[in-house]
Amino acid sequence: MKVYEIRGGFGLENLVYAERPDPVPGPMQVRVRVKATSLNYRDLMMVEGRYNPRQKLPLVPNSDGAGVVDAVGPGVTRVKAGDRVMGLFAQAWLAGEPSRQVQGTTLGGPLDGALADTMLLSEDGAIPTPAHLTDEEASTLPCAAVTAWSALVTQGGLKAGDTVLLQGTGGVSIFALQIARMMGARVILTSSRDDKLERARALGAHEGINYVTTPDWDKTARTLTGGTGVDHVVEVGGAGTFEKSLRAVRLGGTVSVIGVLSGGAGAMPLTPILMGNLRVQGTFVGHRQSFEALNRALTLHGVRPVVDRVFPFAETRAAFEHLKSGAHFGKVVIRVA
Amino acid sequence: MKVYEIRGGFGLENLVYAERPDPVPGPMQVRVRVKATSLNYRDLMMVEGRYNPRQKLPLVPNSDGAGVVDAVGPGVTRVKAGDRVMGLFAQAWLAGEPSRQVQGTTLGGPLDGALADTMLLSEDGAIPTPAHLTDEEASTLPCAAVTAWSALVTQGGLKAGDTVLLQGTGGVSIFALQIARMMGARVILTSSRDDKLERARALGAHEGINYVTTPDWDKTARTLTGGTGVDHVVEVGGAGTFEKSLRAVRLGGTVSVIGVLSGGAGAMPLTPILMGNLRVQGTFVGHRQSFEALNRALTLHGVRPVVDRVFPFAETRAAFEHLKSGAHFGKVVIRVA
Amino acid sequence: MKVYEIRGGFGLENLVYAERPDPVPGPMQVRVRVKATSLNYRDLMMVEGRYNPRQKLPLVPNSDGAGVVDAVGPGVTRVKAGDRVMGLFAQAWLAGEPSRQVQGTTLGGPLDGALADTMLLSEDGAIPTPAHLTDEEASTLPCAAVTAWSALVTQGGLKAGDTVLLQGTGGVSIFALQIARMMGARVILTSSRDDKLERARALGAHEGINYVTTPDWDKTARTLTGGTGVDHVVEVGGAGTFEKSLRAVRLGGTVSVIGVLSGGAGAMPLTPILMGNLRVQGTFVGHRQSFEALNRALTLHGVRPVVDRVFPFAETRAAFEHLKSGAHFGKVVIRVA
Amino acid sequence: MKVYEIRGGFGLENLVYAERPDPVPGPMQVRVRVKATSLNYRDLMMVEGRYNPRQKLPLVPNSDGAGVVDAVGPGVTRVKAGDRVMGLFAQAWLAGEPSRQVQGTTLGGPLDGALADTMLLSEDGAIPTPAHLTDEEASTLPCAAVTAWSALVTQGGLKAGDTVLLQGTGGVSIFALQIARMMGARVILTSSRDDKLERARALGAHEGINYVTTPDWDKTARTLTGGTGVDHVVEVGGAGTFEKSLRAVRLGGTVSVIGVLSGGAGAMPLTPILMGNLRVQGTFVGHRQSFEALNRALTLHGVRPVVDRVFPFAETRAAFEHLKSGAHFGKVVIRVA
Repeated sequence: MKVYEIRGGFGLENLVYAERPDPVPGPMQVRVRVKATSLNYRDLMMVEGRYNPRQKLPLVPNSDGAGVVDAVGPGVTRVKAGDRVMGLFAQAWLAGEPSRQVQGTTLGGPLDGALADTMLLSEDGAIPTPAHLTDEEASTLPCAAVTAWSALVTQGGLKAGDTVLLQGTGGVSIFALQIARMMGARVILTSSRDDKLERARALGAHEGINYVTTPDWDKTARTLTGGTGVDHVVEVGGAGTFEKSLRAVRLGGTVSVIGVLSGGAGAMPLTPILMGNLRVQGTFVGHRQSFEALNRALTLHGVRPVVDRVFPFAETRAAFEHLKSGAHFGKVVIRVA
Repeated sequence: MKVYEIRGGFGLENLVYAERPDPVPGPMQVRVRVKATSLNYRDLMMVEGRYNPRQKLPLVPNSDGAGVVDAVGPGVTRVKAGDRVMGLFAQAWLAGEPSRQVQGTTLGGPLDGALADTMLLSEDGAIPTPAHLTDEEASTLPCAAVTAWSALVTQGGLKAGDTVLLQGTGGVSIFALQIARMMGARVILTSSRDDKLERARALGAHEGINYVTTPDWDKTARTLTGGTGVDHVVEVGGAGTFEKSLRAVRLGGTVSVIGVLSGGAGAMPLTPILMGNLRVQGTFVGHRQSFEALNRALTLHGVRPVVDRVFPFAETRAAFEHLKSGAHFGKVVIRVA
Repeated sequence: MKVYEIRGGFGLENLVYAERPDPVPGPMQVRVRVKATSLNYRDLMMVEGRYNPRQKLPLVPNSDGAGVVDAVGPGVTRVKAGDRVMGLFAQAWLAGEPSRQVQGTTLGGPLDGALADTMLLSEDGAIPTPAHLTDEEASTLPCAAVTAWSALVTQGGLKAGDTVLLQGTGGVSIFALQIARMMGARVILTSSRDDKLERARALGAHEGINYVTTPDWDKTARTLTGGTGVDHVVEVGGAGTFEKSLRAVRLGGTVSVIGVLSGGAGAMPLTPILMGNLRVQGTFVGHRQSFEALNRALTLHGVRPVVDRVFPFAETRAAFEHLKSGAHFGKVVIRVA
Repeated sequence: MKVYEIRGGFGLENLVYAERPDPVPGPMQVRVRVKATSLNYRDLMMVEGRYNPRQKLPLVPNSDGAGVVDAVGPGVTRVKAGDRVMGLFAQAWLAGEPSRQVQGTTLGGPLDGALADTMLLSEDGAIPTPAHLTDEEASTLPCAAVTAWSALVTQGGLKAGDTVLLQGTGGVSIFALQIARMMGARVILTSSRDDKLERARALGAHEGINYVTTPDWDKTARTLTGGTGVDHVVEVGGAGTFEKSLRAVRLGGTVSVIGVLSGGAGAMPLTPILMGNLRVQGTFVGHRQSFEALNRALTLHGVRPVVDRVFPFAETRAAFEHLKSGAHFGKVVIRVA
């Protein structure tokens, strides 16, 4: 099998091509010929050693991949050779509460991931690909789309008529936009670029705020909701935006913490959390029942992920550089085979 | 003030026109000039003495009305003269769990209702009318639309991609169709008439089943969901349909009981409830926070209630006869002033 | 291995002793030397062919067993030889919503069960036995105790100060009594015998009602709650008691359907469900996260199951006859080895 | 009526005795002869101008009071003269979600509060006093006890066998201890003093940690839970303790933010919230349905608030100084009449 692996040390320069023997699926395992893998900011952090410095190397990174089952191990009953599948982010998290055990089964670290032409999944962690999606599109779902669904739907209980504030146009935010629209919610989205706001509007965002020209976007969000505040913020930025998020949300509202792009340190505004009866909810991706519910929604609505750009396998590093640049809108994908 | 009141005994023949002195709003009360009132099956049962045979007479029936505030009592701060408002079904049910006290404040029995050109509301029970709705449209919301919202959203936690089964094309079912669509759900609707199924499809129903030509509609519903069963049934029929509803729903699914058109007696299928881990949830209309959430959704989506027919005040009895005939599609309204 | 199996046809007379080759644990499976098994009404119905007439025979009945792991198959990491474990009722239901797949993994039908000195479990379905319990005590938990926990806690959200109504002194009801007390709730329990009521009081029931001398126990329950009605009824009786249960519960309250002792037929009272905003919730045992939560509670409180009587393996039929007589208080257990 | 009011400026030195004309209850209002009032840290902050510097003066502080109704205004039906009642913290928050309107009705600022021998309540905001409590005891419930109940029960869904970590021995923490015990949970409590830990153990705490001698109390808490972490932390300390709270809690667990004793500034650790799938939940006291549920639990269990010390009305300032010293264990009360 062909892989990219982090070898010898962290850093993009240590992400190198390698060949390994083809794996044989063990009991309850399936072998997947990977067609496409998508990039998450987590994958970049993993490569650079910022996600988990104690991760053992070599490691095949990338949590997200889609392809076709070509062999199954003893005892497998849920899938069969020829099935199109995606990998479940945490292979053992099927439903309910997370656990340490479950966190030890995430793809792309600690387990080898999808930046390879072949990967092993547990049969429980092989999710049927919605028929209307290409493999490239499907490869974008396991981390970013499931995170957005968990935050807004599983944890958030979003409902039609609610207002959601989204930050930027990265993978999770664009999925959150699509999901919020399917759930009938109103979407306010921030970006540093008017052209991206325009694209977001074309995808269904009701309002766009350029946070460069409108640094007080929290006040604008309040104004847009008649002074009440939004019901839900999906926070991706971290310390640089969190305080404003708390000011943009209504009494009793929710701020989902799904990313810390600008770093995790900064002022700790506990008083507004207390006085606002606010809920700050960390979202560590999500379980299989959320993924399956997401797929039903995407299928019913015929919604397709927004793929920013597809790189060939040979240009894997360029794909990571592109993600790092922040120039993307939606998901960055690598075509593996 | 001009009213229709049930006087001397129950029965449509005892629903008579009368004049009463104009009421003066007491503390925390508002007086509303009613423009329109809509009919619910409950109102018909009330007139006929089938809803609550111990109801004291005379009574002005009808829980649902919309109009304009023209006077407010001492202490009122939430609304003012000139505001367009609708009446909250249970005037004192603002949020949370219901109570006996709250059930004693429902309009159209035990309290006088909206079949009048004037009604008194508590200020807490006067709900601002969405700007995009006419008074006739607004008059259809307090009972039927709030019931559908409570069943599917407040109690049901519906989400995009879920499948909902609706029965017939009466007021609650058509609101449930519109709400399910706003929430991104898939809708299967049953009716005895193909033309009504056609109209339901035009409103967004994904599938229609003629239960006359397809008496095993429960099996069809299962087939349409790949054998799994639907996530949620909104049961309006009562004993005549309840067992099939239980067979149409998935493991762990919900059957909302919002009406008992065909009577409340019949076989009691506890075993399928037990084996299916099913939830059978009675829905007694709903509270103000549900009503307000519904209004935000209707406003965002520009959704308008489906008004079957508008009768003049003078033809009130004909309106009730029309409702009783079951020929309607959506809501029957009386224009009061 | 030594088993009792239903062979040749249903009926207690067809529950016969047999010997089978010792099973070898497959991938992700563990082999358990069963020390004790307990009886549920479901097991009796299974033996008599009333639970699932299409069940294939021969079948080793009994969902509930406890013992010691003595061999593990390939890939097993959660348990090891020597561990004391109990079997999870539905071997594949770990958390979240149930499914057809999950229902196909219940012990004692369709899968062979615990009325044997050896059983195979999936590693995911082998639950560590609380240290303070004997194997006989532990063998009573998988079906009856988990059902009571699911009904009151997982589905019911019981809280201190709530009032629970329990019916009779069978296994589920006595577990429900113990769980309700751990959760700080008030317990009203019905029985046909004063001596059983006395024992229930000794276990913590606040009130007992003899339903023979007080056939209007629903009214008594309302009176005991100041006219409000109880918060939660755990319904075990079926048609014979269900209507009274609906009358005993408060507005917005819950009736859990966990048994249908007196049969599932009878009038279905939908109107009180609707008018009372009631929730009728079927409880099909429960998932692993509920079982684990139950075990933490039992351990913290040092609560021990109430074992009515322990029969030797050789007197298996007598044990079933005893259960059938209804004379028991708590759980009937068979000592296997 | 006799009051203490903050007059001329903030600061304890400006908390002065005054006499005002007896108030006359307006529509839906009741007049209460206050027997006792308790102190919350919020009241101290209010007096010192740290809670809301824009609060208009003069103000009668203190959110919490208990006494006897002696007059009712027009339209009042829920209470009558002679009833023993407590004031609801936010007079208009009956259930469901909070709102700006509701936050404008909190006693002790912006509305005049309970540090007076007479206060006006809305009838909806007059809560019957549990019969087993003295007025001094009852006066401690409205803010601190309801906050603890909301955090653990209404928002937290605590269940038997869960582990709760509490900080210190102030009013909310001791109520949280008593509530957690009623709900069957395990309690770990921190304090700077061994004698207070001893008293907490006598009240039911399972474990005590002296955070002076064990500054790594978060690690100790993890160890005490077998490495898993506690289910729920009730955070009262603010920046000084918040990071450790996040490290003490299990994956998917909850940290309730109910106080910011040590200030709201400091580093905001978003990464552990994200990675731990944690919920950080602000608790702004609570609504009437929570208060009523709390009262049912206290009544059933005969639980009495822990009153640290009762000061006479004339020594009001000394009472505040005592609270400020932090020497108390449980609640500080002022006997008014």
